[in-house]
Amino acid sequence: MELPYLTGMAYVTIIAMLAIVQYSYFSFKVGQARGKFDVEAPATSGHETFDRVFRVHQNTLEQLICFIPGIYAFAFFVSPLWATGIGVIFLIARTIYARAYVADPASRSVGAMLTFASAQVLVLGAIVGALLKVL
Amino acid sequence: MELPYLTGMAYVTIIAMLAIVQYSYFSFKVGQARGKFDVEAPATSGHETFDRVFRVHQNTLEQLICFIPGIYAFAFFVSPLWATGIGVIFLIARTIYARAYVADPASRSVGAMLTFASAQVLVLGAIVGALLKVL
Amino acid sequence: MELPYLTGMAYVTIIAMLAIVQYSYFSFKVGQARGKFDVEAPATSGHETFDRVFRVHQNTLEQLICFIPGIYAFAFFVSPLWATGIGVIFLIARTIYARAYVADPASRSVGAMLTFASAQVLVLGAIVGALLKVL
Repeated sequence: MELPYLTGMAYVTIIAMLAIVQYSYFSFKVGQARGKFDVEAPATSGHETFDRVFRVHQNTLEQLICFIPGIYAFAFFVSPLWATGIGVIFLIARTIYARAYVADPASRSVGAMLTFASAQVLVLGAIVGALLKVL
Repeated sequence: MELPYLTGMAYVTIIAMLAIVQYSYFSFKVGQARGKFDVEAPATSGHETFDRVFRVHQNTLEQLICFIPGIYAFAFFVSPLWATGIGVIFLIARTIYARAYVADPASRSVGAMLTFASAQVLVLGAIVGALLKVL
Repeated sequence: MELPYLTGMAYVTIIAMLAIVQYSYFSFKVGQARGKFDVEAPATSGHETFDRVFRVHQNTLEQLICFIPGIYAFAFFVSPLWATGIGVIFLIARTIYARAYVADPASRSVGAMLTFASAQVLVLGAIVGALLKVL
């Protein structure tokens, strides 16, 4: 099954933008934690729970720089439908990661791995798809 | 009024790239502050003013990961002209934010809110625009 | 010499995705260094070598937010072939930077400058290219 180009890009955009909304929600939690645990800017550390909330936000940024270009490149060179599906996995994995990290940093592995894997599948898949166009 | 596709994307690209130039200028200020306040790499903290300059740069990165995909997605699915206008607001808001933060972190709110709001309007507008294509 | 649009974008995508793979490899090194130097999350500092590895990863993120939009915008408004060539320089410069930084932070300048310059050429070139479309 192949989607028309515009419809496919619309699905991918919805997922990509939702990942940014999720990330923005994490930044909102950092602001909240600043107040709650009395960590005033420009400090980025000072209370164990604040540090966890801060790292969730930071690490999500580190994943988005892979995920956002990856999902569009994969959609363009491989399949928008598969890109959308893998993107949904990314969103769910980030939610699992964020909850686990704040509860206990040692338990963050499953969500972290799943996020990382889904982003990398998009990036590596896009490389293969692009290579097939030029070889 | 509707712009031709290429012209619209050119305007959006000029604004998106200017936001990156502004961000790069902030990174240059971090380098300067390293020398001035004697904070040697890999340290990222050590002097109150350095910390502020460092956080301006860092926080702008956190906003760009929303703004850059947001402005292109909004331009594509809603309007390149409105994307350009909202992008100009983002650029001005970041300048206000940077100046206020370095002078006094407590005064950063207006610039921070305006930056955040303009980036989120792009992201949420893009979701609405993309949804209207697939519904 | 002008490439067909799709072929050009395929080359650019291969380079952009390789830069993300390189970045992901740096994040893998951070994870390794956490174990080796006993720096447990959410801490992001605690051992000199860990701090260097952490900063390599972090600084690469700071460059990618310029490089990824820059290479696509440059490819679209100037030339995909030149974008690809400058992208290859970026990839090599980042490798030089990472090795130098971990060995001795003071020696990071050459790699840092070359990375920064190649990303900025893409961004500024894209502005010029886009301006020429609208003027």
